[in-house]
Amino acid sequence: MNHATNITWQTSQVTQAQRQRLLGHRSAVLWFTGLSGSGKSTIANAVEKALYDRQISSYVLDGDNVRFGLNQNLGFSAEDRTENIRRIGEVSKLFVDAGVLTLTAFISPYRADRDQVRARLGASEFIEIFVDTPLAVCEQRDVKHLYAKARRGEITGFTGIDAPYEAPKRPEITIDTSQQPLATSVEQILTYLTANGYLTAPNGVAAP
Amino acid sequence: MNHATNITWQTSQVTQAQRQRLLGHRSAVLWFTGLSGSGKSTIANAVEKALYDRQISSYVLDGDNVRFGLNQNLGFSAEDRTENIRRIGEVSKLFVDAGVLTLTAFISPYRADRDQVRARLGASEFIEIFVDTPLAVCEQRDVKHLYAKARRGEITGFTGIDAPYEAPKRPEITIDTSQQPLATSVEQILTYLTANGYLTAPNGVAAP
Repeated sequence: MNHATNITWQTSQVTQAQRQRLLGHRSAVLWFTGLSGSGKSTIANAVEKALYDRQISSYVLDGDNVRFGLNQNLGFSAEDRTENIRRIGEVSKLFVDAGVLTLTAFISPYRADRDQVRARLGASEFIEIFVDTPLAVCEQRDVKHLYAKARRGEITGFTGIDAPYEAPKRPEITIDTSQQPLATSVEQILTYLTANGYLTAPNGVAAP
Repeated sequence: MNHATNITWQTSQVTQAQRQRLLGHRSAVLWFTGLSGSGKSTIANAVEKALYDRQISSYVLDGDNVRFGLNQNLGFSAEDRTENIRRIGEVSKLFVDAGVLTLTAFISPYRADRDQVRARLGASEFIEIFVDTPLAVCEQRDVKHLYAKARRGEITGFTGIDAPYEAPKRPEITIDTSQQPLATSVEQILTYLTANGYLTAPNGVAAP
């Protein structure tokens, strides 16, 4: 036997559908978008917890694990914001391919950038969730004291103050956290996922 | 009730250990390194298939899904190669945090770049697998006809021909595909994973 020819011994590759079947549910990205302080991360983390309790494999990508890692070499210029979202979109695509229900919590203010990510993913793999909390409410919360700094001019290019936020035109889900408690927002998302078959495995793929 | 204060209602976040427990095994990155044609992707894909058959959730990052996606804006200069590996390392870290056994198949020729990734991951989360197939064997295979092009000078900066490959000093696993069939290499890796407890869930974490 000529071992050097082993490289041509092709193994069947594991497919996305097989990974979903193994995990027992479909995969997609829940793309949260909205102003700073709108509640994106809070809802995303609460949904992850609810999914975990139902034994669904999910993962949250947010500023904490992306801005200081993968995207640590990016700033907040328009160009860098676009590259920031592009990379997050590509990582989401990998996670979805791996079978994981992926949640992203970034302001992602530009419509074109979000639509670019949507185009990179398969049909029904991109679920846009517009966290439509009014600016006044976000600014009143100001958990990170960023709005105050932006108003004082200590931060420039801050979304909602002196940089644009382009709202989604046809988001799959819209949430206004000033109108309902967190538990209701979580329930709203779980209902959507259940109704659209995300929480059950795809048919027609044999489990190992 | 003031709904605007919901943002401060903290949910307990799901931890890496809980995700591992849910999936029933530990997570780590199996970092394959070696020359072009050494067999990295072939072994990685075969290991993924073997893990899938054991109902282990794993995922392969390789040129196919990374070079044309996340790293499409990088070339092959020394600087871009370093950024290429840095990004792959950061994505691996996210996947490991998500509980997935992650396999990466890239030449990753620079020792410093690989050590940087190792340093970014937790203890025993980085398993370096040196696919130590001799250059002559890789060049004889030349599946992608790249060595021929490099010898003719049509490609420059090609690892092993006119660019350096820095072999790992203390890899966790070493494989020479010219000395053993693919099945043996797969078995070698599975034995390592089993012996070191990767294929069973961590203790002390309650499942949901």
